[in-house]
Order: sequence, then structure tokens, then C-alpha cells
Amino acid sequence: MSDKDISQAVISRLPRYFRYLGDLKERGVERISSQELSDIMKVTASQIRQDFNNFGGFGQQGYGYNVNYLYDEIGKILGLDKTHSLVIIGAGHLGQAIAGYTNFTRRGFVFKGAFDKNPALFGTRIRDVEVRPVDEVVDFIRQNNIEIAVLTIPKEQAVPMSQKLIDSGIKAIWNFAHVDLDVPDNIQVENVHLSDSLMKLSYNIDRYEKTLKS
Amino acid sequence: MSDKDISQAVISRLPRYFRYLGDLKERGVERISSQELSDIMKVTASQIRQDFNNFGGFGQQGYGYNVNYLYDEIGKILGLDKTHSLVIIGAGHLGQAIAGYTNFTRRGFVFKGAFDKNPALFGTRIRDVEVRPVDEVVDFIRQNNIEIAVLTIPKEQAVPMSQKLIDSGIKAIWNFAHVDLDVPDNIQVENVHLSDSLMKLSYNIDRYEKTLKS
Repeated sequence: MSDKDISQAVISRLPRYFRYLGDLKERGVERISSQELSDIMKVTASQIRQDFNNFGGFGQQGYGYNVNYLYDEIGKILGLDKTHSLVIIGAGHLGQAIAGYTNFTRRGFVFKGAFDKNPALFGTRIRDVEVRPVDEVVDFIRQNNIEIAVLTIPKEQAVPMSQKLIDSGIKAIWNFAHVDLDVPDNIQVENVHLSDSLMKLSYNIDRYEKTLKS
Repeated sequence: MSDKDISQAVISRLPRYFRYLGDLKERGVERISSQELSDIMKVTASQIRQDFNNFGGFGQQGYGYNVNYLYDEIGKILGLDKTHSLVIIGAGHLGQAIAGYTNFTRRGFVFKGAFDKNPALFGTRIRDVEVRPVDEVVDFIRQNNIEIAVLTIPKEQAVPMSQKLIDSGIKAIWNFAHVDLDVPDNIQVENVHLSDSLMKLSYNIDRYEKTLKS
């Protein structure tokens, strides 16, 4: 089966498998059955087998999956065997938080540049990287073959910025602005809409209280 | 139809409707048909009608939905007509970013306390709120009827913290730690796993490049 046929729903579950397998690996577990994985991840064993079958099944034998192998294979599928360079556009707290995640670096996401429109920040450093004027970001992306632009700017700035990025050669936008971006198919977009998540939480609080009263 | 029967998939889409309706409202649009909403949101009109039918349909007439009414109704469903108090556990950049979102305040999420285990931060302020020792968080939640705990701490600390929160009376955990939490049904959990999102982006970059080569 070609990658093209695999649904985004399956893809969305892969990082979670990767995370649990990483934990198992750290704990020195060498083999795990789909049933055991099912128990700790709280998804059905049949879901796990179905998901893995999209990638050839990862060779489960009678006594389960080889944890190291499975971890590596899923990592490769997720593109984590390569490095990806990224720039952060918006050097506020959120941008600084993201730049500071050593976990991302460990997974091959290399933080190469930080940009802001606030002159007071120019020349300050986030980790080892100097904050530059946002006007320079397109040239920087071109000159340094940057793959991912992280947008941690307000929504009013995010839409025009995404339009400027279209011709920069950027491959992907990780969008934290509270707006959906309209870019061509050659640019991958992943949104993290924090407000949406918080509203869902608020809904579920309400719903639970209603079930108590009913 | 009772709220209990509405799927989390539908709920997940409500904040996005709310966001688009808010934008329309700001632009002074008074009425919108499901087809127009479909065009700007890039979901089918039939999906929109199906989603809205879960809540009685919001009275679409021949010429469409009343934007203000629809915005208010969806806001109420999401619990945004009430205020929700929250504390932030982990006063690093991410915690500070979240505390600083005026948008959240505007939607009724009121930031009441910040906690950290780093003594150097005790007494410093995030907006008007003083950072306190994390050991005080359970008492603070009890005394101030806090509804939501935002976990912006590393995963190793998040699991024991979630266990401490269970008896605090907290209603919900907004979890940014890179781990799934195991709490009883009376505590709602919403996860924001940033690494998972970034890995999905990395997968989609790879996949797109493969389609170019094939």
C-alpha cells in the first residue's frame, strides 16, 4: 500500500504509538503483544493491528512486537530519521517555549532562526539563536533551506505572513495563530488552535455537570 | 437529543464554527447560508447542517442563519456564557504564554493562580498573579473553587501532579505534558501534545516529497 492511501486518522495515531514505544524502550521492555499495548494505550488490540497493517504489520510474531524495531520503524515513517530545520516567527513566550523544547531537537527538529517585528527583541537570543527582524525571514528561509516555519504570531499577522511564505520554498507551516491558513498543496500545514482545545474542555465540563443533574 | 449523545467529533468542530462566526460577526455580516459557510470553512454544507441538527438546527430559514444568534448559541453550548477559573502549574514560557492570552480572558477563562517548583520564581508575577510554590496548589484550588488546572510541566512531574489533583475538586485538566493522564471520569482532560502535532507535520512533508518522486 502506498503512503498516499493511508488516512490522516491513522497518521494522527502514529505519534502516540511512538511515544508509548519510546517509554517502553526506556524502561527496557523488549517485546510487547498487541494486547499488552492495547491495555496501556487504551485502544483495542484490533485497532492497533489494523493501524500497523497499513505499514506491513511490523512482523508481529507469536510473542509480540519487537519494541526497538517497532519504535525505529514508526520513527522512520514519521520522518524522524532525518533532520528538519525550522524557524520561529514570533519570539514571544510561545515562540520561546517551542524553541526551548530539547525534545524536539532530540527528534531531529533543528531550530535555526527566530524572527519578530518588535525591534526591542532584535539581537536578543533564544538559546543560541539571535532574534532578527521579521522582514528578513523569507530571505533567511531561502538561503538556509529551512523546511518548517512555526507561526507564533497573532492571527492578523499570520494570514499575510503565510502568503509571504508561499514563495519562500518553505515546506511546512506549524500554525499556532488562531486562524486557518490558505496555502497551496505543496505547503503542509498543521494547526495548533489552543482556544479550540480550551473550548472543548469547557464544553466537557458543562456536559459532565449536566449528567450529574439528570 | 441529549448532550450525552453528541459525539466528540461534532464537539471538536464547534470551536471552529464559533471562530468563523466570530469573524463574520466582526465584519458585520448578519446572515449566512450553510452554502456560504461551507465555502469559507471548506467543509460540506451537508456536514454543517448535520452538525447543527444535533442542536436543533439553529433555525435556518430560507435565507440562512442569523450570525449573531448562531454565534451566541454555539458559545452557550461551549459553556462560554459562564466564567471558568483556572490555575497554571508550571510558570515557564509556555505557562506564561497561556496566562497572557487576552483572548482566553475575553471568552470567560479567568487566570487565578500560577505555581512552580522553582523557588527563584516565587513572588514574581505573571500579569497580576503571583507565582506560588507548587506545594500550595491543591489547597489553592479547594479554597478558590478553581475549575481548570493547566499543566505546563514536564511529563515526569505531570503524572504525580494529576494524581494529587484528583482529590482537589478540580473539574478539568488542560494537559500540555507529553504524557496521557489517568484520572477518573469526573475530571475532564484535554491534551495538547505538541510533539505529536510536529511529528504529523514531519510525516506530511515526507509524504508530499514521495508523491513528487513517484
